[in-house]
Order: sequence, then structure tokens, then C-alpha cells
Amino acid sequence: MNLDQIYAHAKEWINEAGAKIRLSFNQTLNIETKSNANDLVTNIDKEIEQFFISKIREAYPAHKIMGEEGFGDSLDSLEGIVWMIDPIDGTLNFVHQQRNFAISVGVYENGVGKIGLIYDVVHDELYHATSGNGAYLNETPLNALKESIVKESILALNATWVMENHRIDHKLMIPLVKAARGTRSYGSAALEMIFVATGRVDAYLSMRLSPWDFAAGAVIIEELGGIVTNLRGEKLNFLSQDSLFAAKPGLHQSILNDYLKEGKW
Amino acid sequence: MNLDQIYAHAKEWINEAGAKIRLSFNQTLNIETKSNANDLVTNIDKEIEQFFISKIREAYPAHKIMGEEGFGDSLDSLEGIVWMIDPIDGTLNFVHQQRNFAISVGVYENGVGKIGLIYDVVHDELYHATSGNGAYLNETPLNALKESIVKESILALNATWVMENHRIDHKLMIPLVKAARGTRSYGSAALEMIFVATGRVDAYLSMRLSPWDFAAGAVIIEELGGIVTNLRGEKLNFLSQDSLFAAKPGLHQSILNDYLKEGKW
Repeated sequence: MNLDQIYAHAKEWINEAGAKIRLSFNQTLNIETKSNANDLVTNIDKEIEQFFISKIREAYPAHKIMGEEGFGDSLDSLEGIVWMIDPIDGTLNFVHQQRNFAISVGVYENGVGKIGLIYDVVHDELYHATSGNGAYLNETPLNALKESIVKESILALNATWVMENHRIDHKLMIPLVKAARGTRSYGSAALEMIFVATGRVDAYLSMRLSPWDFAAGAVIIEELGGIVTNLRGEKLNFLSQDSLFAAKPGLHQSILNDYLKEGKW
Repeated sequence: MNLDQIYAHAKEWINEAGAKIRLSFNQTLNIETKSNANDLVTNIDKEIEQFFISKIREAYPAHKIMGEEGFGDSLDSLEGIVWMIDPIDGTLNFVHQQRNFAISVGVYENGVGKIGLIYDVVHDELYHATSGNGAYLNETPLNALKESIVKESILALNATWVMENHRIDHKLMIPLVKAARGTRSYGSAALEMIFVATGRVDAYLSMRLSPWDFAAGAVIIEELGGIVTNLRGEKLNFLSQDSLFAAKPGLHQSILNDYLKEGKW
């Protein structure tokens, strides 16, 4: 795998895709719903995914692609090089806010994260990393993450998960939220992972995400010494939906030990 | 009251204050706690409040000032011209994130909002309005708010308020959150009010804020046709702490009618 070349291509394409999205702000969006009335997709999500796919197919015909909008491959193995793409992570924000969304692109080799890029299009902030070679915001290196403790932590966690829900016993979450310094919720898993990577929040917890939501963020956070697992503390599953728990070192283990281990899973 | 002159001064000073805050990013902060371990204040909050006070005292010695850090006046009446200032709204974000905070400046005459300015320092976005003369993001006029319905709404609402708490029966909040399209939480009342003013969220609910948190936002939102009250639907109290409920027209009344009226207050 020629990592440098793929990395350069990924950066070039994500910048191009961002420019396309910025241009779309003047157009009327074509908005459809997917799994439920609040799960939106727009023509731009689809166009951006197709843009990436055509670029990848042309340059790297042997690579596989998983994309949120389903124009990629249907995979039952992570063998080889796999691109995991969310053309617009945070579509609801894209539609309602025209900000607080991101393009997320991860490149994995035999299931191991190699490249992660997350582009906050509106603020022109490209976060990117290659495994073993550091993580950056645009050209500026990001600092390694420091240890943190629960009572000094800000958690990215949606209100949904402290109410009765189908994914997790909310009684597990409430003591954690009460112990922490505060919670935030931004509505984009990719950006919330970037908030962990940059130390703006100390942990991010979500109950159901897909590989393209967390593939890029996992590479960036791990490169900075953060820990990324599911809520059981297990390695993430990149072939299906999974929960997500990304946190600073130290904090990850203490939240697992003190709050999540007794769960009804 | 020479509104135009005061407005021009307020804009000049808020820009100057923003520049001071940007410079502070390279300094080590002196952080203290206030009412509890998670209620932080920094030397920068204090310096910025004192900066505004010295400017106002010099130009307008007859004006009164309420400021979050307590360097202003202790008021028992809103008579005359009152400046309501939060030098850094979202201090926790300022400390942890160095973004997602704002300077908030409201000017009231005999208790009636006349001028509101909220400056998102990091993104260099100054939101400002004078009553009756439109609201702006930098030089761009903001659009009047359109009506919205609960099931298509994004609510700015912290997870705290759907868990058992001392301020509101969380059982009132849960059906509202379940009915809405989603929730977000940004950790700055001033920015959350700007998110209402710009339509990025449809409503913002908070259980306890102070006049300097909502003074500027109320002017801006009302200028755009939004409704700002406390959670009982009453006029805000600018002499003490109050709850806050800011929303698009239509939505405000329907949330009050359908979710908040039966509360245990």
C-alpha cells in the first residue's frame, strides 16, 4: 500500500468535495428521509459520495469502498484496502444549520486504520492523520492527549441516552453525567471525535453508529494516544453498526470500570 | 438615549474585547471556581468585564451596568439605561475548548431591550441588533424567523434537564425531547440564543440563567420575530435569575401548550 500517495489523493479529493458542498449552499436541497422521519439524506450527500467513489475507482480499482449512502461495495470482509466514507456526517445539521457537519474519510488495510481525514467544511478545518506519523489540523500538529478524570471532564453525549431508550440502560449513564463537569452534543459523530482528538471534550459516547461514522476519527484519536472502543470496551466492529466510546487515556478505563461495566448489554 | 452612538460604541468595544481575548490564547489562564467546582472564572473574564466598565463609565457616567463577574452595579431597578454584560459566556468552553464562547452585551432602557450584541470571537462572527432596525451577522441582515413545529425541530437543551434535577420536573421534558427531531447542547447561552436567531435550532430551553446571559440574545431574537420568555411563558425577569425559553414563532406557543403548562413549578 503506497500510503503517501493514497493520503495525498484523499486530501486532494476531500478538499474538492468541500468546495462542492460550499457551492451547494446557494442551491435548494432535495431532502429525503431514510430509516425514519428524522434520518435525512440530501442530493448533496449522494453526489459527494459518488464523487469519491469515481475518484477511488479510477485511481485504485482494487480498493473497496464502504459509504453511508450505499453507492460503494457490500462487504463481508475487511481484507485489502477499504475506504470508509461519510460524505456528510451530520446531515441534520447540514440541512438545518449549514454548519456543524463534516466529511469523514478513513482508509483501512486488512481492518487496521491507516489514514483518517475529517473536514469541517464551513470552518475550513481539515483534521488528518496517518497511523504512526502524527495528526494535524491543516498544517499544525495536534498535541498528544493528556490523562483526564471524570469530575473534570466534558462529555459529548446526547440527551437521548440519559432517557429511557432501546440501546442502553439509561440508569448507567445518569451517574456518569452527574459526576462529569458537563455534557455537550453537536450532532456529528465525526466532529465529536475531532472534539475528543483536540481535547475540547474529554470523551464521546454514542449508542449506535456505522463504520463510516467512526473510521476516520478512530485513526486520528488513536494517533494522539486516545482510546477508541465500543461501550463494552471492545475493539470496534467495522463491518456492522456498533456503539462508540472514545476518550482520553486514563479516563477511558475509569469510565469503563466505574460506570459501564455493570450494564445490561 | 442616543441609540446610534451607544450602538456604535458597543460595537467598537466588543471588537476590542474580542481582540484581547484572542491574544489571551497564548497566555496561561488563572482559573478559579465560583459557586461550585464546575462554575469557573478566569482572569480574562474579569479583565474583559473591567474593560467594558471603564469604557462605559467614561463615555456614559449616568448609565448603570450589570456584569457577570460583579464589577458593575448592584441594581434593584431597571430605570434608566442599563448595560447587561457577560464578558465570556461559556467560560467552561473557553477554558476547555478555546472556542464556543461569546461576549454578550445588551443595553436596556427602563427595562426594555434596545441593543443586543453577541460576538463569537473565534469565528469572528458579530451578531447584533437594535430594536426596530433589524438584526445582522457582521454586515449581513438576518432573515425573519419562520414558524416551526415540534416534530421538525432541533432543540438546544442540555442532558441535565431530562434527568432528575432541582429545577424542573424532568418528566415534562422527556416527551418534548422524544417528539422533537433532535437535541443539541453547546454550553453557551448566548450562542444557543444566536442559534435560535439564525434558525440553526428551533428552540432553546434552560432552567437557570442570569440577565447578562440572555439580555443581548433576547433583543436579537425578538427583532427577528422569535419569542423569548421564561419556561412558564412569562416575561423575563432582568433583576434576578430566571429560566429561559426562546423559540421560533408558533413553536413557542405549541411547546408551552402541549408540554410545559402542566408542570410542577
